[in-house]
Amino acid sequence: MKILLVGASGTLGSAIQNELKLKEDSYEVITAGRNSGDLRVDMSSIDSIKEMFEKLGSVDHVISAAGSAAMKPIEDLTNEDVLYSVQNKLLGQLNLVLIGQNYLNEKGSFTLTTGVIKDQPIKMGSMLSMTNGAVASFVKGAAIDFKKDIRINCVSPSVFDESMKDYGEYFIGVKPVPVKNAAKCFIESIEGDFNGHEFIVY
Amino acid sequence: MKILLVGASGTLGSAIQNELKLKEDSYEVITAGRNSGDLRVDMSSIDSIKEMFEKLGSVDHVISAAGSAAMKPIEDLTNEDVLYSVQNKLLGQLNLVLIGQNYLNEKGSFTLTTGVIKDQPIKMGSMLSMTNGAVASFVKGAAIDFKKDIRINCVSPSVFDESMKDYGEYFIGVKPVPVKNAAKCFIESIEGDFNGHEFIVY
Repeated sequence: MKILLVGASGTLGSAIQNELKLKEDSYEVITAGRNSGDLRVDMSSIDSIKEMFEKLGSVDHVISAAGSAAMKPIEDLTNEDVLYSVQNKLLGQLNLVLIGQNYLNEKGSFTLTTGVIKDQPIKMGSMLSMTNGAVASFVKGAAIDFKKDIRINCVSPSVFDESMKDYGEYFIGVKPVPVKNAAKCFIESIEGDFNGHEFIVY
Repeated sequence: MKILLVGASGTLGSAIQNELKLKEDSYEVITAGRNSGDLRVDMSSIDSIKEMFEKLGSVDHVISAAGSAAMKPIEDLTNEDVLYSVQNKLLGQLNLVLIGQNYLNEKGSFTLTTGVIKDQPIKMGSMLSMTNGAVASFVKGAAIDFKKDIRINCVSPSVFDESMKDYGEYFIGVKPVPVKNAAKCFIESIEGDFNGHEFIVY
């Protein structure tokens, strides 16, 4: 199976790579990222996503561990912050699906990433809540709408133990989880029959 | 209390107006819409929203019954469909809050509109699912982030009995509700102490 992993260099992406390696006899993994990976992609650019898929050709499963959003108090959010958040975490992943569906083999799948902040909000996190909620609900809608035999799921992880030293101060009251727990869900999404499912890792 | 009602001319907006009229001794209602109302506003334009609030001045409660999104099979969605959906139902309501917070009196509130399709998807509805989910999760995040004593809630209605003749064919399997049931929730959002609450009307 040929698998595209976007956002491979991040904490989550690296952990997914490790899980995929455990089955390297059955998975051919192509990594993609802004500054590293087998293919380079700017998720905020439709042209860049198209170019990535043109280079990739047909693929069985697409995993996205990519996407960032602004973190600011709601009083200070500028239009640029909003558009940055929408372009990256939301439209980046959405366009990965809309463009990618044309390259997916039969019985292929998409697995996107949302996050705990949609269910347990944090201070300065309204853009994260918004983009996570958008992606999670898009997955539900898309899952019943593909004509081809394509599945789509998402993984909604809590903050990671491994990220607490960098982001812990923002996630007060949120219970962290090992990144490995989230990474394993992406394998389950590929291998299982899940469709329109949100893997909750908290 | 001074109340701004955006999207006043629609099926939901008209029903909200009727409910507000039942308390006309305590409510001063200013309506806004693209083609009708006391004030005109294009919800896809930040400048237009700013201009509306400049004309309005300070306000106690802001209600949005506005916002549309593309309805198309996922295979046929163009970038224009995506941007239309994001600009209108999502960013229109989000910008109403981000700009409006500067005009809201203490103890003011926002009440936005989402919809059943985020929880019970329909064919061709992935953009509705996505925008509804985004607004619902934004409301949760914003509710804990305002520094001023501002509340924010949303109402998520099913398709309306009154809309079934026009849209019924798309909402197969979705149980319709009287629009009045949804309209009453906007009054409850204003009058109650709800914050970060999603009124589910299905």
